[in-house]
Amino acid sequence: MDSAVMNTRFDGIKLVQTTDFFYPNIDDPYLMGKITCANVLSDLYAMGVTECDNMLMLLGISQNLQPEDRDIVVKMIINGFNGQFTFVDLFSSHVTAALLTRENLKQLQLAPPMINPSVSMTVLDLATEAGTMVTGGQTVKNPWLIVGGVATSVVKESELIMPINAVSGDVLILTKPLGTQVAVNANLYLLPHNKEKWERIKHVVNEDQVRESYDTATMSMARLNRVGAQLMHKYGAHAATDVTGFGLIGHANNLASNQTSAVSFEFHTLPLIKHMHAVNAIASFRLMEGRSAETSGGLLIAIPADKAQQFVKEIEELDGWPAFVIGNVVEGDRTARILENATIIEVEQHHLN
Amino acid sequence: MDSAVMNTRFDGIKLVQTTDFFYPNIDDPYLMGKITCANVLSDLYAMGVTECDNMLMLLGISQNLQPEDRDIVVKMIINGFNGQFTFVDLFSSHVTAALLTRENLKQLQLAPPMINPSVSMTVLDLATEAGTMVTGGQTVKNPWLIVGGVATSVVKESELIMPINAVSGDVLILTKPLGTQVAVNANLYLLPHNKEKWERIKHVVNEDQVRESYDTATMSMARLNRVGAQLMHKYGAHAATDVTGFGLIGHANNLASNQTSAVSFEFHTLPLIKHMHAVNAIASFRLMEGRSAETSGGLLIAIPADKAQQFVKEIEELDGWPAFVIGNVVEGDRTARILENATIIEVEQHHLN
Repeated sequence: MDSAVMNTRFDGIKLVQTTDFFYPNIDDPYLMGKITCANVLSDLYAMGVTECDNMLMLLGISQNLQPEDRDIVVKMIINGFNGQFTFVDLFSSHVTAALLTRENLKQLQLAPPMINPSVSMTVLDLATEAGTMVTGGQTVKNPWLIVGGVATSVVKESELIMPINAVSGDVLILTKPLGTQVAVNANLYLLPHNKEKWERIKHVVNEDQVRESYDTATMSMARLNRVGAQLMHKYGAHAATDVTGFGLIGHANNLASNQTSAVSFEFHTLPLIKHMHAVNAIASFRLMEGRSAETSGGLLIAIPADKAQQFVKEIEELDGWPAFVIGNVVEGDRTARILENATIIEVEQHHLN
Repeated sequence: MDSAVMNTRFDGIKLVQTTDFFYPNIDDPYLMGKITCANVLSDLYAMGVTECDNMLMLLGISQNLQPEDRDIVVKMIINGFNGQFTFVDLFSSHVTAALLTRENLKQLQLAPPMINPSVSMTVLDLATEAGTMVTGGQTVKNPWLIVGGVATSVVKESELIMPINAVSGDVLILTKPLGTQVAVNANLYLLPHNKEKWERIKHVVNEDQVRESYDTATMSMARLNRVGAQLMHKYGAHAATDVTGFGLIGHANNLASNQTSAVSFEFHTLPLIKHMHAVNAIASFRLMEGRSAETSGGLLIAIPADKAQQFVKEIEELDGWPAFVIGNVVEGDRTARILENATIIEVEQHHLN
């Protein structure tokens, strides 16, 4: 399951919680904050939970950033996270930013976690005792930015859609196109130090197309799956998950394996961010096998066949993004596969507004 | 406040949540797991919340550890955290271990967060664009272990003790001795590469005394503040906080500043782990100024004067550890101070069993 569901001491009231942290994958800190928030909340939405009572933001700051840049970058990430946060109309505006460096805490005047300058020494000793090499002594720095969060909701049992009730005859909807990893990487190939990689793909896409696909990917990643969760209730969805790091097939297999009925998932259609099929053919992210990682991807929903078209129509009206009927639930051994000669839909930016 | 308190959509039901992460400060991974858990839960206990509905464990793995050592260390930390977790009789046994490396996730067969090998490149590009130096390229590794967690509880409003109602005439109780930072560091001075530091303190403590104090500190840090929270309700405590990274005075000042009445806190007594007064006189951790950081320290509680002795007696009976009346709440400007010639109590290990 995408979120943990716990009993509380109160009758019929459940605690739903999820956490996720990862490395930034785009170079706009504000948008990265929004994407982080959307990605964390997505695990709640996949369970049909549309209201979030609290979010904690987790943020590890790279000490390779100069203090003046660090200050700007961190504030932008937090603003992005918070902006998203307000947008989803949470009950509380409480966001805890737990940062890893004392300096940033001072700069931002946020409540620091318990960080004690004397303990880094101890950490290094632990590494030493475990028989390892330690590089750099006490001046060692955290080289990575880490972003993430925790989303928590207190819900009535009826607000949950447990991801276990798909039946043969259901169809499978995907609410965002695939290909975010390919698009983000293609965009990186435009940088001078990636010239060699750019040389390989420039025969199938030009610079403008790469930038356009990157914009589509970025907007898609920053988009919340909240309306999808609301419509799952309206149209009686049977099970759902969100598509993230393990790609379509990874998450679909996981969802299929959890079904009460002996069913499998067959995908006949792959909606892809435009040009990513061509780029993938050269750069090989295993996109066509459903194995390319997605960041803040769409909801994969098993829904009664007679409700699918209404669902797809309404989410497009409300969100301004298309959703796609991509497969069928059939009798089977609780696995997922992409059918041979699956139809490819290229999703263009002008579809989106 | 030590925890965030949020409204839920259910009448009279609050969501209480806290998060903390930090670097290990002792070299026993199992005990470090227990201490991490105790330290995270302590923020709930400080608010009078004695039941925790869910904990998330946050764990960042040093990539400087060899895989075989890493596996052992990580399992020991998780076992310690879980052991503590079971001990406090949580409603759910759900612990999410969110690890930072793919390898560990495989080894431990835990559900991985969304980590994508291709994104580290992007992180580095972000650092570059922000005008910084990047060391080590794509082979860069996370040099630190990070431990922490999130504790969440769904409570009735009456289960909370808001930390704002201290009045002049109350007394101040501290439920653990001070000096964990000094004890942990003194123990490190026994290591060969700290010989110079050991030479400075060896005139006031011998090796056995350092080890004994370290054991006391370790047991104290791994101890939960749960019984303290239960007794806060029983004896009508007016306000409380837990003493961690900012030391006694840092947290006392923070608590004093939040009081509704114009009061100040005056400390006449400092309970210290035995020998730490002498070590601090040389190594200078600002222990006597109440500025030495504590890890998983005690609860500092403002309580009606006529209840204090009963509280102290009962917590010692239940927990097997002494608690201490260390000061008074007086009329004032919402600050805290240690009185001149404060009494020092040296807390010995044989007090503890």
